[in-house]
Amino acid sequence: MKKTHQFQVRVYYEDTDAGGIVYYANYLKFMERARTEWLRELGHEQDKMLEQSVAFVVKRVEMHNHAPARFNQLLSIESQIVELKGASLTFRQEIKDPQGHKLVTADVKIACVDPVVMKPRKLPATLLGDLSSGI
Amino acid sequence: MKKTHQFQVRVYYEDTDAGGIVYYANYLKFMERARTEWLRELGHEQDKMLEQSVAFVVKRVEMHNHAPARFNQLLSIESQIVELKGASLTFRQEIKDPQGHKLVTADVKIACVDPVVMKPRKLPATLLGDLSSGI
Amino acid sequence: MKKTHQFQVRVYYEDTDAGGIVYYANYLKFMERARTEWLRELGHEQDKMLEQSVAFVVKRVEMHNHAPARFNQLLSIESQIVELKGASLTFRQEIKDPQGHKLVTADVKIACVDPVVMKPRKLPATLLGDLSSGI
Amino acid sequence: MKKTHQFQVRVYYEDTDAGGIVYYANYLKFMERARTEWLRELGHEQDKMLEQSVAFVVKRVEMHNHAPARFNQLLSIESQIVELKGASLTFRQEIKDPQGHKLVTADVKIACVDPVVMKPRKLPATLLGDLSSGI
Repeated sequence: MKKTHQFQVRVYYEDTDAGGIVYYANYLKFMERARTEWLRELGHEQDKMLEQSVAFVVKRVEMHNHAPARFNQLLSIESQIVELKGASLTFRQEIKDPQGHKLVTADVKIACVDPVVMKPRKLPATLLGDLSSGI
Repeated sequence: MKKTHQFQVRVYYEDTDAGGIVYYANYLKFMERARTEWLRELGHEQDKMLEQSVAFVVKRVEMHNHAPARFNQLLSIESQIVELKGASLTFRQEIKDPQGHKLVTADVKIACVDPVVMKPRKLPATLLGDLSSGI
Repeated sequence: MKKTHQFQVRVYYEDTDAGGIVYYANYLKFMERARTEWLRELGHEQDKMLEQSVAFVVKRVEMHNHAPARFNQLLSIESQIVELKGASLTFRQEIKDPQGHKLVTADVKIACVDPVVMKPRKLPATLLGDLSSGI
Repeated sequence: MKKTHQFQVRVYYEDTDAGGIVYYANYLKFMERARTEWLRELGHEQDKMLEQSVAFVVKRVEMHNHAPARFNQLLSIESQIVELKGASLTFRQEIKDPQGHKLVTADVKIACVDPVVMKPRKLPATLLGDLSSGI
């Protein structure tokens, strides 16, 4: 399994603000799409996981905004897992513009929870296995 | 009870796009906030309604965009109910800029549903009563 | 040139609401993405158009919501142009779920404007030509 | 001048996701609204500042999510300034639920830029004065 995941996101009007650049909260959307697609490529569909009482919540975000993304750019997101525990994991994600300039870097810590009671729970063994072989 | 409801919304960066104006989908957010606050003023809190299996879904939107709203404007939203049936109601809503210019008008038809099975259901009698006295 | 345009959109958490379904305003985002990609396939990049003082604003939306889209679904959007004038055009767009059920249909009227003064202007001749051959 | 700023935000459907809680990126919207209203109370309107080539961009976010906010809650946001430099400032912001439970804490570093060239610039002297008396 590959150790990093690549994903691309197009910047639409919906993502920008009156400053002419991507609104800062929207980078968090882009990075979640990338994480979701990585899980999907590993065979883990989150709607199916929800039915098994497995959900994810973000516990911590540390985001550095180096330069702004702009309308209509095709952005690249590179993701890797930098910490993997029994009930949480941390992604390091980097967003680049079409010229390869680094725009945003972030560490995002995700906890696995039971969505009904919103309590922490262990990552499913199969997911843990698939992800740990990716570090 | 008053026949129309007034509400104000401030335009933040999050609401605008790179064209320097409010992104068109966001007017639908503003209008829903106004509808929600009207119900709240009548004593109907939607989280409580959800616990009683009463939810609302939008069935139809007809929106006319006359002129754009801009960053930092304080917008006024006037709402009235133009149709009230057993299991649905239609709001007519108008968004104006601080100078009173009409920016957006919309008719929004809402259906009452049971949120678990997503099937139509009658509006609760107390809500129907409160709303019908407002037409 | 094809007479209709096909596009796919994945439903992420960002698109859903506490009702467990796609938030109604977000269908307008999905439909705009589809329109943008159609123009791109025809060779018309909107950031380049902006530099030539060509922008688009939505003037009218008539949206019918037949059934809700849900988290993690891969939606299909079919778009066609049902009216094409000198300074405006109207798209008819239909969103379907993975089983082919019709979820949302909408007519969206777009006006071409000069983004600096926000005044109507004619569609560029090359775009008009490319689009009219698609009707 | 007060040393901290208090602001309230209502959670609407638009802010939630299918997990039944506020979507994590949306806390960044709430916190920006609070910062904007603080500046407004000090007499600094951002649309006027833009006309004088003064804009703000977020450079760094460190957000800790302790517990989720839920649909229809009225949240309280307390903001303070923990660092104030010539061309940047850092806010510490805390979001609490109606019972006073701490949901989200974040440090948000903002840089002052010239919006045309997107280059750093000094904070206007009057704003710097108003903010420094608030630390």
